[in-house]
Amino acid sequence: MIIVMMQGASKEQLAEVKKRIRELGYKPHVIHGETRNVIGAVGDERGKSVLQSLESMPGVENVVPILKPYKLASREVKPEPSVVEIAPGLQVGGDKMVVMAGPCSVESEEQILETAHAVKQSGATVLRGGAFKPRTSPYSFQGMEEEGLKLLALAREATGLPIITEVVNPRDVELVARYADIMQVGARNVQNFALLKMLGQLDKPVLLKRGMATTIQEFLMSAEYILAEGNRRVMLCERGIRTFETATRNTLDISAVPVLKGQTHLPVIIDPSHATGHAHLVPSMSYAAVAAGCDGLIVEVHPHPEKAASDGPQSLRPAEFAAMMKKLAEFAKVAGKSL
Amino acid sequence: MIIVMMQGASKEQLAEVKKRIRELGYKPHVIHGETRNVIGAVGDERGKSVLQSLESMPGVENVVPILKPYKLASREVKPEPSVVEIAPGLQVGGDKMVVMAGPCSVESEEQILETAHAVKQSGATVLRGGAFKPRTSPYSFQGMEEEGLKLLALAREATGLPIITEVVNPRDVELVARYADIMQVGARNVQNFALLKMLGQLDKPVLLKRGMATTIQEFLMSAEYILAEGNRRVMLCERGIRTFETATRNTLDISAVPVLKGQTHLPVIIDPSHATGHAHLVPSMSYAAVAAGCDGLIVEVHPHPEKAASDGPQSLRPAEFAAMMKKLAEFAKVAGKSL
Amino acid sequence: MIIVMMQGASKEQLAEVKKRIRELGYKPHVIHGETRNVIGAVGDERGKSVLQSLESMPGVENVVPILKPYKLASREVKPEPSVVEIAPGLQVGGDKMVVMAGPCSVESEEQILETAHAVKQSGATVLRGGAFKPRTSPYSFQGMEEEGLKLLALAREATGLPIITEVVNPRDVELVARYADIMQVGARNVQNFALLKMLGQLDKPVLLKRGMATTIQEFLMSAEYILAEGNRRVMLCERGIRTFETATRNTLDISAVPVLKGQTHLPVIIDPSHATGHAHLVPSMSYAAVAAGCDGLIVEVHPHPEKAASDGPQSLRPAEFAAMMKKLAEFAKVAGKSL
Amino acid sequence: MIIVMMQGASKEQLAEVKKRIRELGYKPHVIHGETRNVIGAVGDERGKSVLQSLESMPGVENVVPILKPYKLASREVKPEPSVVEIAPGLQVGGDKMVVMAGPCSVESEEQILETAHAVKQSGATVLRGGAFKPRTSPYSFQGMEEEGLKLLALAREATGLPIITEVVNPRDVELVARYADIMQVGARNVQNFALLKMLGQLDKPVLLKRGMATTIQEFLMSAEYILAEGNRRVMLCERGIRTFETATRNTLDISAVPVLKGQTHLPVIIDPSHATGHAHLVPSMSYAAVAAGCDGLIVEVHPHPEKAASDGPQSLRPAEFAAMMKKLAEFAKVAGKSL
Repeated sequence: MIIVMMQGASKEQLAEVKKRIRELGYKPHVIHGETRNVIGAVGDERGKSVLQSLESMPGVENVVPILKPYKLASREVKPEPSVVEIAPGLQVGGDKMVVMAGPCSVESEEQILETAHAVKQSGATVLRGGAFKPRTSPYSFQGMEEEGLKLLALAREATGLPIITEVVNPRDVELVARYADIMQVGARNVQNFALLKMLGQLDKPVLLKRGMATTIQEFLMSAEYILAEGNRRVMLCERGIRTFETATRNTLDISAVPVLKGQTHLPVIIDPSHATGHAHLVPSMSYAAVAAGCDGLIVEVHPHPEKAASDGPQSLRPAEFAAMMKKLAEFAKVAGKSL
Repeated sequence: MIIVMMQGASKEQLAEVKKRIRELGYKPHVIHGETRNVIGAVGDERGKSVLQSLESMPGVENVVPILKPYKLASREVKPEPSVVEIAPGLQVGGDKMVVMAGPCSVESEEQILETAHAVKQSGATVLRGGAFKPRTSPYSFQGMEEEGLKLLALAREATGLPIITEVVNPRDVELVARYADIMQVGARNVQNFALLKMLGQLDKPVLLKRGMATTIQEFLMSAEYILAEGNRRVMLCERGIRTFETATRNTLDISAVPVLKGQTHLPVIIDPSHATGHAHLVPSMSYAAVAAGCDGLIVEVHPHPEKAASDGPQSLRPAEFAAMMKKLAEFAKVAGKSL
Repeated sequence: MIIVMMQGASKEQLAEVKKRIRELGYKPHVIHGETRNVIGAVGDERGKSVLQSLESMPGVENVVPILKPYKLASREVKPEPSVVEIAPGLQVGGDKMVVMAGPCSVESEEQILETAHAVKQSGATVLRGGAFKPRTSPYSFQGMEEEGLKLLALAREATGLPIITEVVNPRDVELVARYADIMQVGARNVQNFALLKMLGQLDKPVLLKRGMATTIQEFLMSAEYILAEGNRRVMLCERGIRTFETATRNTLDISAVPVLKGQTHLPVIIDPSHATGHAHLVPSMSYAAVAAGCDGLIVEVHPHPEKAASDGPQSLRPAEFAAMMKKLAEFAKVAGKSL
Repeated sequence: MIIVMMQGASKEQLAEVKKRIRELGYKPHVIHGETRNVIGAVGDERGKSVLQSLESMPGVENVVPILKPYKLASREVKPEPSVVEIAPGLQVGGDKMVVMAGPCSVESEEQILETAHAVKQSGATVLRGGAFKPRTSPYSFQGMEEEGLKLLALAREATGLPIITEVVNPRDVELVARYADIMQVGARNVQNFALLKMLGQLDKPVLLKRGMATTIQEFLMSAEYILAEGNRRVMLCERGIRTFETATRNTLDISAVPVLKGQTHLPVIIDPSHATGHAHLVPSMSYAAVAAGCDGLIVEVHPHPEKAASDGPQSLRPAEFAAMMKKLAEFAKVAGKSL
């Protein structure tokens, strides 16, 4: 940490701050500037937010952290990229892109089977589908719950595709884990630390979605919650952040791909469906994501978007998805990967 | 809902959309414009997000909702303000302002008792203190948990002040409810719907904090989750939203006070501590909140901010809090209220 | 500046950075940390953004500025508040609040005279009115231009109220200055540096509005452009920033009042009309602004808002303005000021 | 426009609003809903913001615009993409991508010539370089002004590359136009309408940058200012918007590419340098932009970024630029274009 003293802070104030820094287990190192002094507090500051409290001391202007606060998620601790095993022969984070596709919500046996077969044929390698739906309105469809999980399992059996589905309540972790191959944490739960800790104790891959107002640093801290409990199979998912722009549902922060790649070894997945909110924007954003260097996509596909129980406007029809996958393969190749 | 057709949409497309509107239980009503047609779908659209899926139909440009999606939280359903009873003789939402004060985290018996006595003497009527702390970093202090709840109960006994404390995990609702007089939902859990539903089934007042990127409308939908389960003692709390500005921890959306007052009958509380992140900004923001017409404040007070386990920089010292309360009483009087 | 070296940066890289720091006229001061080194560059860094370029050197992770980049606007240079003289006996920044009121646009002699008399009677001490209107659409009313300035002058003559009006084009500075008592810079021009420099050479007070996405620091840098040219009569105006929230036109950043008061000696004015976009929110936001410690308000008042050529929905009717001013006087008194 | 009446608005209020709609030249068309009425105002509403003022009438809840407010920029008026001619044989908006490259600021003859030769050799077809620099700080380097323009012209002569440079003051339009092949409007001037109008009267292509907080719709309205004056050679440039995220200088709104392509016929250029603020993020964002379907890039290249007078950290070295261009060509090919 760097502690910036106020212009005009007294010698006594400086001495008090240095004393307090030592009490907290750091070594103070003063730089005498032209108009003010700054103090470097040498020591491992990660996780010790308590240094921030020095801002309350007389004569202190502000406290500037220097180290990144995450460890296990950091490239400094583990420089080589992590490859997350989903199922035998299916890995995320290596040379092969993963495409997870399927409806926002599981709605019926017919719907999920039709979609599963369609997305598999187009090259998807994981089936997505929501059984527990976190909906803004208590009056909206809340998902088929365990019945939905059973239908997903049925579709897995029929197609061989591993399944990813969201868990929203710590109470349901065990239940969802009985069915899912990948546990999904939605944007609204990115700082649901109770849920993250439980997922950290599972032996299952986790897809962690960034929240609408989550900074990259906070996002990695949430991943750290899972990693710190022992589960190292964590994938990060950028799905759009909230900005002033209303032409899209959210704003896809495409630069999160190289930024995350620079800071963490964890794989990075892009969700172009929630990011844009409009099906016609999904293909171009998928191409962009692949060109930017992501490790995979999670895409909403529905056989009849105009009748979907949720997120219809952002769902591709199977034929649109098929067309997109062809083009995607070409972009992936230039990016040095394959589908 | 208003369905806006594309310029150049065909008669057949218009007919298809009208047909689908009828299937969904609404009456279509077409307005033939100069360059395009729009269709009003007449019927109660609240909670039926399914109409939004019409955007996927050929010829449809976009779908514009007209009605507010909440009911029980709405002033249209209940025009008179709700008064929430906290304890015998202590009501929120009437002529008397409530001031909840105390440390971010309960840290020790001495700390919570010292603070409780101090804030009571200055005129606070509720004691705040965190026992379960949602922290960005897994390495930060996570709260004293049940031990903290017991210390809060001790402080209540010693001072007579009812206590408010946060619950972060649906699993802990029962435990926290055994101790707390007001259940607090933090900003990170504003869309933790599993938690909201459980709180809706309690017979306890709930303080619901707005999330960092929660719109007013989403905020009221989250309140609706609690109300819809039967618990009508809900208080809303604005605590700053996330913007580009970094001079403050968050940006206090002070206009949320009159906006909420216009749309809902629920009481509105302001948290100037989390909103600003700096103790020296808390008094002026408290005055502003009262002048804007809020029903109360929740303020962080700590006897030794420079040693606080969390949120030291934004905590007032007891003497600072006492000075603020005096001035606050004067502003409250002009606003037609008393402390 | 603090230069943070990468973990694993070599001795040679450190030496190169130190050398470059010296070349740029600073003294390097290395702190050897546990996992990385940081270098303090001692010297007056203000305005020399060139240090930031060190980020391009091998082994450098990032560069953290320590000093505030403004000087003349800073409280460190001039601790006591500036009082800006508008007209004989009319000062902004002292014990007396200023209220500037009037229509968004000057539309006719009748309209501006009627408004001027009305706002004067209610206690306003400056008349506002736009003659050059920066409008988002080229097809919207663009203002009456010089004709509008003449009508403002007429209203000044009739009422004795000094007038404030916006200038949008450096070319028009001289023209507007012939009529106006205060030159207003609108939010869209907060970084129109050519305009700011010209205003800095005038002998007229300037009201500088914050832009929709301007940080506090950038805002003060824009003020610095005016101050650096010699004109010290600068007033700052917060008028709402752009956020994700759409319930209000902008989000009034009320905490900008104490933040600015802490960093600069310049007076701070609040514009609750543009901040909220809705007339019914203007009174409560005006009260909040006064309670927060601002030096004045600029408020839109129109005799017939439903017929206004611009910004009707956010304009108060004269009777509403009169009622607000009464209450405002009471809040001002508690805040230690008078109207 | 759709005028939404309040629940409980009276018949008389409805009649008054209908009357006012007719006075303004529209035909009112009432839809009687279950809980409230809405009125469609039929007529060409574009540019007539005056309808918005109906919000001030008793009984009106709010006014919802339906039509896009721009005309000449719209795909509805001109469905086929516009191809902008820069120089003989150099067109933007067709099958060939344009890459504009060069330093942020022109600093010396040697610097601009070295850069111009280097970027040409790597395949850039336009040379960029700033002579008038809008800088946040009045103490920062403000550009070489006319001297810089002359050096740009020299570099054009030496390499044959057309030049793009920024104009910030309406007063300088004529001067800059004497040298530049493309007139650049920077983000800070996106709503400098005086400047836009003057550029609309020129016979020169204009590159209009989106502002940090400019919505897509406002961006197109700014383009409309230029088009409406007669100049149809307008190119749009997305360069990052301001969000809460600080890991990048701005957040590249990559979805602006397909959104703009859907709404306007004007070419879309991406500036990955200002969007990210870090040179190491520029290549991946350039690839993403091309995959997303943009018509070109504008990229900062500097022979010695660590010594640049401005924007060093985001400037590529010539060798880095050369490597990027090779990969870019491959992505462009998949996107159906060539460099």
